[in-house]
Amino acid sequence: MRRTSFADYRCSLSRSLELMGDWWTMLILRDLYLGINRFDDLVEDIGISRNLLTTRLGDLVAHGLAERRAYQEHPPRFEYVLTEPGAELVPIVLALTAWGDKWAPPPEGQPLVFRHDRCGQIFTPRVSCDACGEPIVADEVTTLPGPGGGPGPGAYVLARRLAEKVASGELSRPG
Amino acid sequence: MRRTSFADYRCSLSRSLELMGDWWTMLILRDLYLGINRFDDLVEDIGISRNLLTTRLGDLVAHGLAERRAYQEHPPRFEYVLTEPGAELVPIVLALTAWGDKWAPPPEGQPLVFRHDRCGQIFTPRVSCDACGEPIVADEVTTLPGPGGGPGPGAYVLARRLAEKVASGELSRPG
Repeated sequence: MRRTSFADYRCSLSRSLELMGDWWTMLILRDLYLGINRFDDLVEDIGISRNLLTTRLGDLVAHGLAERRAYQEHPPRFEYVLTEPGAELVPIVLALTAWGDKWAPPPEGQPLVFRHDRCGQIFTPRVSCDACGEPIVADEVTTLPGPGGGPGPGAYVLARRLAEKVASGELSRPG
Repeated sequence: MRRTSFADYRCSLSRSLELMGDWWTMLILRDLYLGINRFDDLVEDIGISRNLLTTRLGDLVAHGLAERRAYQEHPPRFEYVLTEPGAELVPIVLALTAWGDKWAPPPEGQPLVFRHDRCGQIFTPRVSCDACGEPIVADEVTTLPGPGGGPGPGAYVLARRLAEKVASGELSRPG
């Protein structure tokens, strides 16, 4: 069953999700990042069917998140590695993993910990503001219409409400 | 079609994904955060069927990510609001939105921009290290076995490789 496509949604979150395909894709990205790059290893590690993995890896390559690379010539053998956009999803995957460690930990305890090689510390990934560096908390963020803001699939009500707030002076478009 | 359950996966990422259900859930979380809290508004904004929305909202409530709250008594009317774990997913949703703005922007341009109320700046959410504050880049992170590390669904190959690295002295378990 193919789910609804978000490709024409006027929402960058929807468009990210479209490229990522489904939850399996997130686990495949995790494994490619962790150095599990070969088909048979991915099947074993994630417990995904070979058919589904073939499709998902094909989508990752088609969407530019991973590349297929030969690691042996005779006989030809391939592995999958993350591209730059794929690698830029990794910190987000780590942040979601940390959320799971906190709110849905496996009964055995935290499966993995992360060390930041720059500072040498075991760390918890957190989402922060690139202007002031402070952690982002949901109720300290105001959402404003961007240059491409407007009604469309995935943002009908939202665009109308934001436009009303701008019209009433409650919000101002960023200059 | 119900997809594979990740509930017994020994991986906090899988367990997060299990609680989030599917991509629709991520868009519902987005809307609840943005103040679109009522059933009919969610249907219109996201373009989701009423049946699917009923199921997804029920899952969000069952998993503790959202709460159903009466906003009117006669006749009774309800809306859905994020709980604390649900609200803690919001920064991650914002980070994924920013990734989409960069790598898969809608043709019209960035639909939304975010202002950090603490510092007053328009910002890009980024994942950073809670020890040193620097942005997290995929190749500057080392993954180590945690207290609950070990082989299991979602981590068969990974757990074996990490154990080998610990045994060889290439990695040490954090103290």
